[in-house]
Amino acid sequence: MEGEPTLRLRIFNLNCWAIRYLSKRRQQRVRLIGDTLRQEGFDLVLLQEVWSEQDYSELKAKLAGSYPFSHYFRSGVIGSGLCVFSRFPILDTLLYQYSLNGYPYMLQHGDWFCGKSVGLVVMKISGIIFNVYVTHLHAEYCRDKDAYLPHRLVQAWELAQFIRHTSKAADVVLLGGDLNMHPEDVGIRLLRGWTGLQDAFAEAMRFEGCKNGCTLVPDNCFTDKSELLPFPLGIRIDYILYKAISSFTVKCEELKTTTGRAPGTDIPFSDHEAVMATLHIQRQGQPAGATLGTPGESGRSLADVVAEARAEVGAGLQAARQQRYSSGRMAVLALLLLLLQAAAALATLAGLGAEQPFPKLSFCLLAFLALGVLVLATGLHLFHTMEVKMLHGTEDQMWMMLRALQERPSEG
Amino acid sequence: MEGEPTLRLRIFNLNCWAIRYLSKRRQQRVRLIGDTLRQEGFDLVLLQEVWSEQDYSELKAKLAGSYPFSHYFRSGVIGSGLCVFSRFPILDTLLYQYSLNGYPYMLQHGDWFCGKSVGLVVMKISGIIFNVYVTHLHAEYCRDKDAYLPHRLVQAWELAQFIRHTSKAADVVLLGGDLNMHPEDVGIRLLRGWTGLQDAFAEAMRFEGCKNGCTLVPDNCFTDKSELLPFPLGIRIDYILYKAISSFTVKCEELKTTTGRAPGTDIPFSDHEAVMATLHIQRQGQPAGATLGTPGESGRSLADVVAEARAEVGAGLQAARQQRYSSGRMAVLALLLLLLQAAAALATLAGLGAEQPFPKLSFCLLAFLALGVLVLATGLHLFHTMEVKMLHGTEDQMWMMLRALQERPSEG
Repeated sequence: MEGEPTLRLRIFNLNCWAIRYLSKRRQQRVRLIGDTLRQEGFDLVLLQEVWSEQDYSELKAKLAGSYPFSHYFRSGVIGSGLCVFSRFPILDTLLYQYSLNGYPYMLQHGDWFCGKSVGLVVMKISGIIFNVYVTHLHAEYCRDKDAYLPHRLVQAWELAQFIRHTSKAADVVLLGGDLNMHPEDVGIRLLRGWTGLQDAFAEAMRFEGCKNGCTLVPDNCFTDKSELLPFPLGIRIDYILYKAISSFTVKCEELKTTTGRAPGTDIPFSDHEAVMATLHIQRQGQPAGATLGTPGESGRSLADVVAEARAEVGAGLQAARQQRYSSGRMAVLALLLLLLQAAAALATLAGLGAEQPFPKLSFCLLAFLALGVLVLATGLHLFHTMEVKMLHGTEDQMWMMLRALQERPSEG
Repeated sequence: MEGEPTLRLRIFNLNCWAIRYLSKRRQQRVRLIGDTLRQEGFDLVLLQEVWSEQDYSELKAKLAGSYPFSHYFRSGVIGSGLCVFSRFPILDTLLYQYSLNGYPYMLQHGDWFCGKSVGLVVMKISGIIFNVYVTHLHAEYCRDKDAYLPHRLVQAWELAQFIRHTSKAADVVLLGGDLNMHPEDVGIRLLRGWTGLQDAFAEAMRFEGCKNGCTLVPDNCFTDKSELLPFPLGIRIDYILYKAISSFTVKCEELKTTTGRAPGTDIPFSDHEAVMATLHIQRQGQPAGATLGTPGESGRSLADVVAEARAEVGAGLQAARQQRYSSGRMAVLALLLLLLQAAAALATLAGLGAEQPFPKLSFCLLAFLALGVLVLATGLHLFHTMEVKMLHGTEDQMWMMLRALQERPSEG
């Protein structure tokens, strides 16, 4: 076993915050990211928030020598923002778009337009099959009253399910991304418990970087300081997770984060810190035992996590049903008003009324207003109907899993 | 090898055409389907177009004795319409919603609202792991000028990719559903070539039913006869496909279809015919060799099929770009008109004009019209931007696959 060759893999993960017209000093930072990646020569680069395909193309051109293989995942109105650069050939890819991702009318948040997804690339390095996942979950805008928690939990659940179902032929699973969850949040516990993925920060033999591995820190000149007031050290929401399946072991030799600035410069890569891991992958004489599908946590504690997540999804379902009802009622009221106006107009035309009760202008304005409300409320109703369907479906799936866990508590 | 035990599996597949308020004699037919399924005692039942959850619940209650395990897949505004009933425990499920599925404004077709998807259920029967997929692809409304062909091809591609990536630990893969494609269509060839799935009708040792295995036939009193004019015998668009992976073989002992009527009655189950297959699954002494991921067709002919599909997707991409441009231009024009009106109104308020050039009413009507056009055109522009992204992404993936196939032509 000791004699088996070891594969050393250096991975770079970063939420690039490259939103056209909105992100500060975007072009300069993308150039800086490209230059650093070229110099450092990682094996695998996982990027999020590369919203502009032009930025991707520039990176691709710059990195063609050191990272000859790359993939950009397209989805949503703006794109998924996800891309991968690799020293090793990419054999196959798959994109899974999360079924829920915020609300189209929350323009100031804009997550809905991004088509948040998880991208999978399959690679074979030194005969070892790697399933590499890159993702970005819905942002958390207000931790105390997080309206997006049910959506983010559905995403964490779908991410875990997607990884479990697609990684059965993989030797090693890697996941990098901005999960928008703190390490102790229920979504992370659900994801890790259900897939058995390990946290590179927690497992690292050496660590260098921001305290507690934080990736959103006050020292970064681009972060919103007011958001970080309750967390003076910052928060950790960007992760590299991994797991060996079949007869391999993975160890995290070293984990690093940037510390508010890109190395050797005075500006950061992004408003997030980069996470860089050095992993050791070794073939074992006998299978490691734990495989995806057999959750890493014990059945009992995993059941508790799923029950907790299910309660949150259930609360989201309640809220979504309420919104579906309100928007439906609004649409019906607008329709009634329109019909009433139509009846009044017909009556006037037929000469039933002595004279028109309203001035023409107000009458028309009211009709247009009613029509506008009808269209918008119908759209909202359809949207919330879909939301209810997906939350309900996830709640059902979680219930099915709970039942399965409870039936075999000792197997966990 | 001869001594290995054989598993015999009876599968029922049907597009139920159970649209509330729209489908003829729906309740009677759903009752009939339930009664037949209970009497016949299949092992596995794959249903499509069960749009109403109430119909599903009724079926579930009726079939609880003979099919104790079931799953309903929720998605879209109306639902996915997909459900599974089984004699054997369902271990796990996953839903993948196709990224493209028609247009929300094509209300008369309505596919967009259905959230067309593929559902996966994992089962273990006699120690054999089954990945069972049920799906329903976008309908074909006009074969000569099929505006939905690029969307259906994206769905066929995503279906193939989803099956390939999720079935790596399965011993047997089964796919049942209404694929809305004729057996020789490029989408079917792509799906079968890329996954290696076999067609139960083509492989069946015995066949009984409509000529050529047709599942949409003129003899069915619910079919639209005018649509079937070019096909006097009917068309075959509902399939049961299968594939053995690892060390198993699957043979189709018998395939049956209904023939325009449910057995022993004077009305059909649906406007589609049911497809019923009896499969023999046997463990082999040595691996069967072919696995998913190693396409069933030779590299060269599969490359031709992918190239053909990619050309169609490319044509769809052209059209989608054109529509994105048109809707964007319309939105800009509406915005310009609104700005012009705002300027005119301000000028009048400021007393610059001697008197208002238009009557107030027409002015307001015009403004509302412009606003309506702006909102609609912006919505359309966003929608077609997403469509472009997904078509472009699929075209890219297909290109990647073509390159891979061309690099290893002899391995196919």
